[in-house]
Amino acid sequence: MPHIELPPELPGITSAFAFSPATAKPMRELAEVLLRGPNTLSSGEREMIATFVSSRNECLFCQDSHRAAAAHNLDGDYALVDAVKDDYQTASVSPKLKALLGIAEKVAESGLHVTTADVAAARAEGATDQEIHDTVLIAAAFCMFNRYVDGLATWTPSEPEMYDVMGKRMAHEGYVRPDQPR
Amino acid sequence: MPHIELPPELPGITSAFAFSPATAKPMRELAEVLLRGPNTLSSGEREMIATFVSSRNECLFCQDSHRAAAAHNLDGDYALVDAVKDDYQTASVSPKLKALLGIAEKVAESGLHVTTADVAAARAEGATDQEIHDTVLIAAAFCMFNRYVDGLATWTPSEPEMYDVMGKRMAHEGYVRPDQPR
Repeated sequence: MPHIELPPELPGITSAFAFSPATAKPMRELAEVLLRGPNTLSSGEREMIATFVSSRNECLFCQDSHRAAAAHNLDGDYALVDAVKDDYQTASVSPKLKALLGIAEKVAESGLHVTTADVAAARAEGATDQEIHDTVLIAAAFCMFNRYVDGLATWTPSEPEMYDVMGKRMAHEGYVRPDQPR
Repeated sequence: MPHIELPPELPGITSAFAFSPATAKPMRELAEVLLRGPNTLSSGEREMIATFVSSRNECLFCQDSHRAAAAHNLDGDYALVDAVKDDYQTASVSPKLKALLGIAEKVAESGLHVTTADVAAARAEGATDQEIHDTVLIAAAFCMFNRYVDGLATWTPSEPEMYDVMGKRMAHEGYVRPDQPR
């Protein structure tokens, strides 16, 4: 049961967004820019970083919803997203994305854990300053979203179908939509 | 030295905001609503929660700038802010704020660490659902800001006077200003 009274029919972060529209607005905008804005990293890659960080933070709602959003950005390839989540070093993704996931992993622990060597490794695989910046901020932002969702003990549905539906909307309609809060 | 090329004359998060205006906009708006929007918690109390979380995350730039912003919201009472940072249980703040700081401390570790008992303790001291929500989100948001600042290794000035000037502007002019990025 949530720690505060939230709309009971809404799952995860959507219930907290409905509770507090004034903070939901910039948070939704941030997710939209970070995950769906113009970028040399694809939305699929960025959603995989978000899923990976949420997994490290053990946030089930964010992990499963962004896993589905990532898959819907990757022609339904849930297996690739799961491979990244389980062991990105052996997953079939580019060396650049692996290096960026290494940075995201450090950020999830603490920004202070990111080293010059981590950044040099990403740059050696072709990562730009913008891509390194965006990876750090996606990881940092999910440390916020994850804590918001779990710190309020929001409702975490268990049905995979619900996440598939959510992920499809997140991938194709995004995070700032006219029908919100949904 | 920062991990990526940031404007060298700008300290901490302001350099990252200048690097990425598209993400800076919602992040500044979130800080403004959370710390200066209409609220039954004073801006001084909210800035102390922000300072406390940044201290737990060992983010020197956020800790010192929000310490100054808190003090400037509290008639210059740096001693009170430092007392909260060092040991909030013995600081001269309300039992309600102490209970909320206890929740913020848990959120800084993980949202999953917040217990029903933590929330009941805050409610017993008069905290409302909105105040509990806002405390969770302030703590979560600073887990993002702190990681953003340190994950990029932004410039952390050492002069206390610089933070005092920044804190004064943060307290009196806020986080969304016409002259940004500053």
